Amino acid sequence: MRGLYYFGEGRAEVRSDLPVPVPAADESLIKIKFAAVCSTDREVLAGYKPDFVGVMGHEFVGVVEKSSDPTLVGARVVGELNAGCGKCIYCRTGREGHCVDRRVIGLANKDGCFAEHMTLRTDLLHRVPDSLPDEVAVFCEPLAAALEITDKVHVRPSQPLCVVGDGRLALMIAQVLSLTGAEVVVCGHHADKLERFKPFARVEVGEDETFELVVDASGSPSGFDTARRLVRHRGTLVLKSTFAEKSPMNLADLVVNEVTVVGSRCGPFEPALRLLERGLVTLPPIELYDLDDWRDAFGSRAFKSGFKF
Amino acid sequence: MRGLYYFGEGRAEVRSDLPVPVPAADESLIKIKFAAVCSTDREVLAGYKPDFVGVMGHEFVGVVEKSSDPTLVGARVVGELNAGCGKCIYCRTGREGHCVDRRVIGLANKDGCFAEHMTLRTDLLHRVPDSLPDEVAVFCEPLAAALEITDKVHVRPSQPLCVVGDGRLALMIAQVLSLTGAEVVVCGHHADKLERFKPFARVEVGEDETFELVVDASGSPSGFDTARRLVRHRGTLVLKSTFAEKSPMNLADLVVNEVTVVGSRCGPFEPALRLLERGLVTLPPIELYDLDDWRDAFGSRAFKSGFKF
Repeated sequence: MRGLYYFGEGRAEVRSDLPVPVPAADESLIKIKFAAVCSTDREVLAGYKPDFVGVMGHEFVGVVEKSSDPTLVGARVVGELNAGCGKCIYCRTGREGHCVDRRVIGLANKDGCFAEHMTLRTDLLHRVPDSLPDEVAVFCEPLAAALEITDKVHVRPSQPLCVVGDGRLALMIAQVLSLTGAEVVVCGHHADKLERFKPFARVEVGEDETFELVVDASGSPSGFDTARRLVRHRGTLVLKSTFAEKSPMNLADLVVNEVTVVGSRCGPFEPALRLLERGLVTLPPIELYDLDDWRDAFGSRAFKSGFKF
Repeated sequence: MRGLYYFGEGRAEVRSDLPVPVPAADESLIKIKFAAVCSTDREVLAGYKPDFVGVMGHEFVGVVEKSSDPTLVGARVVGELNAGCGKCIYCRTGREGHCVDRRVIGLANKDGCFAEHMTLRTDLLHRVPDSLPDEVAVFCEPLAAALEITDKVHVRPSQPLCVVGDGRLALMIAQVLSLTGAEVVVCGHHADKLERFKPFARVEVGEDETFELVVDASGSPSGFDTARRLVRHRGTLVLKSTFAEKSPMNLADLVVNEVTVVGSRCGPFEPALRLLERGLVTLPPIELYDLDDWRDAFGSRAFKSGFKF
C-alpha cells in the first residue's frame, strides 16, 4: 500500500511498497478515507519526535474492514491516538495517554494514518454518527484536544477568558469556550483569520485588559509571552502549543504572580462527536490533496489540509 | 399603580393603590414590560418567605425611565435580584448575593416586578441586546440560575451527568450542561415534557446507571432521593430545588459515600444573555396573563407563565 513514511532526521517520502498491516487480536484494520495534517506532523518533520520512524499522521476518518469486535466491521470510525501498556501506574490510574511505553499512531512506535490502511486497538475507535460527513468527522481529534481544556480546567461562564492564536486549534478552542456562555476574547495577528472568530468572540484585547484564564494556542514562543502578559495574578494559563524549538523561560514571574500553568494535550472524543453532530462547532472546509502532493498539504495555508484516499 | 401584593401568611391580591416607587440616588426606575412566574413565587405563597411583605416577582424585562446612569434611560433591561449592604464580609468578598441584610426583589425587603413599575440599584441592571425579543429576554434570570452550576462546579464534558426533573429549570440546566459536549441524561416522569429534552439529551436512565454529577432540579423531596440514588460515590450532587416543605434527611450515607452536595441559587446574567442572543438555549414560549388573572398564571401548567404590562 501507499503511505507517507518518516525516516527520521526530518526526512519523509511517499512509499508504495508498504505492506497492509495485520491487526493484532485486540485490534481493527481500518481503510482510511480522509486524514488531516496537524501542526504536530509539521513539528515531527522539524525534529519534535527524534525516535519516531514509520507512517506519519494521527487525524483520520475511516471504515473498519476487520476487527476484534465483529459488530464494528463496515462502521465508519475515528480513533484515539494513545495505546498504553495496560500495566504501569498511568495505565492503572485512568491516564493511559501518559503511559511511558505508549504507542501513538504516527508519533511513537505505531504507524499512523497517512496511508491506505492502518491498525488500531479496537477500544480506541469511536463510531461516527451517520449524519456527520467525513469532511466534518475528520475534525474530531483536534476538537477533542480543544475539549481537553474544559475537561481538565474549570472554565467559568462569568470569568474573562482569552485565547492567544487565530489558527485551527484556536478556532476550535474559542468555540468550545464560548459555548459556556463566557465572553471569549481572541488575541491574534491575522485580520483575515480573526474574521472567523467574530460570530462568537471579541477579537480585540483592550488596553491593560487581563484575564482569569488564558489559553496559548499560538504555536509559537512569542504567543506564550503574550499569554503570560495577559493572564491575571493567581490566574490560569493553559498551554496547547507544541513546538520543537526550545525557548528561554523566566519562571520567577510565574511564582511571584502565582500563575497556574496547565499543559494540555489529547482530549475526549465522544463530547467532540456530540458537538460536531449538533453543529455547535463549525469549521471551514478541509483542503484535500493526493498523498504524492504531501509537501503542498503540509505547506498549505488553508484552515485545514489533508489527504483523500 | 397596579401590582400583585403579598400580605404574608399565604395571602396575596392585586392592588391598584400602590404608589409608583421613587428611585434612590443609586437606583433606576423601570417600567415593567413582561414579568414571569417562578416556582419560588409559588413557594412564597406556600410560606417559604414568612417575613416578606410587598410586591411579588423577580423575573422581568423592562425599560428604564429614570436612572442614576442617564445613558441607561430608554434602554431595555433585565436585572439581578440581590442588593447587599456593601459592608459585610459577604459584600466585601464578592458574594453580595449572600449578604445577610440583602434586599431581594419580590423576596426580601424590596418590592418586586409583578407591578407596573419597580426600582432597582442601577449596577444590577443588564442591557438586553436589540436582537433579543422580550419573550426571550424574560428567561435571562432562570437561565442565569442554570449557569450558576457551571460557574460553581467544574462540569467535565467527558463525565456522565444527570438532571433530575423535567420542568422549566431542568430544561435550561440540561441545555447548559449539554453545551459542554457532555452526554446529559434526564430523569423525569412526564413523557410530554421529556420530549423537549430529546434534541440534546437522553431521557432514559439505564438500569443501575450512576453519574459523577447529578443536578436535582425536580422541585420535590422525592427528586432529591432519586438524585442521591443516581450519584456515584465521591460524586457531586447539585441542589437547585427550593421548597417550603421540610423533609427527613439521612445524612450518614452522604458521609459514607463521600458525596459532595452543592447548593446553587442565582447565577451570572451576562453569560445567559450571550447564550440567548446566539440561540444556543431554546425555550417554549411564555404564556402571558393579565395581572388580575394571577391565580391562573400561578396555576398554569404551561412551560412558563407570566404577566404582560
